[in-house]
Parts: sequence; C-alpha cells; structure tokens
Amino acid sequence: MKALIILAHGSRREESNQEIVVLADKVKNIANGKFDLIEYAYLEVIEPDLHKTIEIVINAGVSDITVFPYFLNSGNHVTRDIPAMVTTAMQKYPDCNFKITECIGMYKGMPELILQQIESG
Amino acid sequence: MKALIILAHGSRREESNQEIVVLADKVKNIANGKFDLIEYAYLEVIEPDLHKTIEIVINAGVSDITVFPYFLNSGNHVTRDIPAMVTTAMQKYPDCNFKITECIGMYKGMPELILQQIESG
Repeated sequence: MKALIILAHGSRREESNQEIVVLADKVKNIANGKFDLIEYAYLEVIEPDLHKTIEIVINAGVSDITVFPYFLNSGNHVTRDIPAMVTTAMQKYPDCNFKITECIGMYKGMPELILQQIESG
Repeated sequence: MKALIILAHGSRREESNQEIVVLADKVKNIANGKFDLIEYAYLEVIEPDLHKTIEIVINAGVSDITVFPYFLNSGNHVTRDIPAMVTTAMQKYPDCNFKITECIGMYKGMPELILQQIESG
C-alpha cells in the first residue's frame, strides 16, 4: 500500500491549519487510486506531526510513503528539518520505502501561475 | 504606472531568498507589460521589506500597486500583518492605489498542481 503525506508548516491560526485538511481531501478526490492513503501532517505548532502520521499509515499497512513538502521555499525546513525527520523514520521502519518530493515552490510553472492568480483577484 | 510587488516571507537561508529574486525575474519576463515594474519584498528576516519596496516604486513614478502575498496559507501574516502594512502605506501615500491579491495558496487548481508536482519528482 502506498501513502502520500502532505506536510505543511502548521500555524497558530486554526483556519489556516484547516485549509490543509480541506486541501488533502481535495487531493484525495482527484488522485484516482495513485495512493491508497492520502494524509496530512504539520511540521510545527500543531498535531499531527510527521512522525505521528507516518506511524498511522504504517499501522494501516502502508509500505511506501511519499512525503510532499507543502512549502514555497527551499529554506531550512525543506533542506534540513524534513529530510532529518524522514531519515529517522527510515531507521525506525526499515521495511518501508520513503521518498521526499520537491516542495510546491519548485513547480516550474510558478511564474505563469502567479500572473494567473493575480488576474483572478 | 503600475507595479506588482511579490511579497515573500523571507528566510535566514540566502539561497531561499534568492529564489524570490529569480522568481520575480521570471514573472517580469512573461508579464507582457501588465505591470511597469515588478519587484519583490520580504515580510521578515531580510531586506527589502514591503515599506522600502513601496517607497522605491512610488519614487519611480508608480501610482498603482498590487501586493501579491507569496504565501500558502491564510495565516496571521496574510490576514493581519500584510493588510496592516498596506493600510499604513495607504495613509502615507494617499494618491496611490493599493490592492492586495489573494495569496498563492488560494489558487483553485492547487490539488491538481500537487499531484502534478509529485509525479514530476
């Protein structure tokens, strides 16, 4: 079984965290079986954190986990903190495959997307 | 004259801030005259901040400024800090039109974009 974990920063503002829940739901609705489970986690401030979500999906029978950093910049969280957490998980669950994708900010069409978003409001 | 200011969070990691410089350049290259000036600013950590960039574009003759929050979530920065900074600028420059667009995270195609980004690596 394959799982996708959308990993966001986490905010002190509940509405902001709720946006990630809604986003993960929307991704689920269009994923067409590419992943058996699509979950979310937060790096800071609130639960569930990445370790907790990894534990949940592994207990559900997952043996292949893709971690998607929902971050715009390749700052310290993306380059250091998230890889360190995934390395810890790899040591804890040696039978599970882990992959970290590029963060959303690395999307190559971002300049066009920005202009499009500005025009829409 | 019209200006677009791409407003990012700002990081302690120089490479991360440099990504915004490159991004603003790419937006410039495809904007096809929609804006006379396209600049960037950072909310925290490093210069130029939003006030400084607003001052620069107004001194260059701009009278219409669009502030684009390059943020994923409608957290406190997007809902409180950025509007407060723009309100201050409106009071300082009453002859200039200011507009804040929705942040990049509000892009309606984000779920599709996430799956696309995951597939590309």
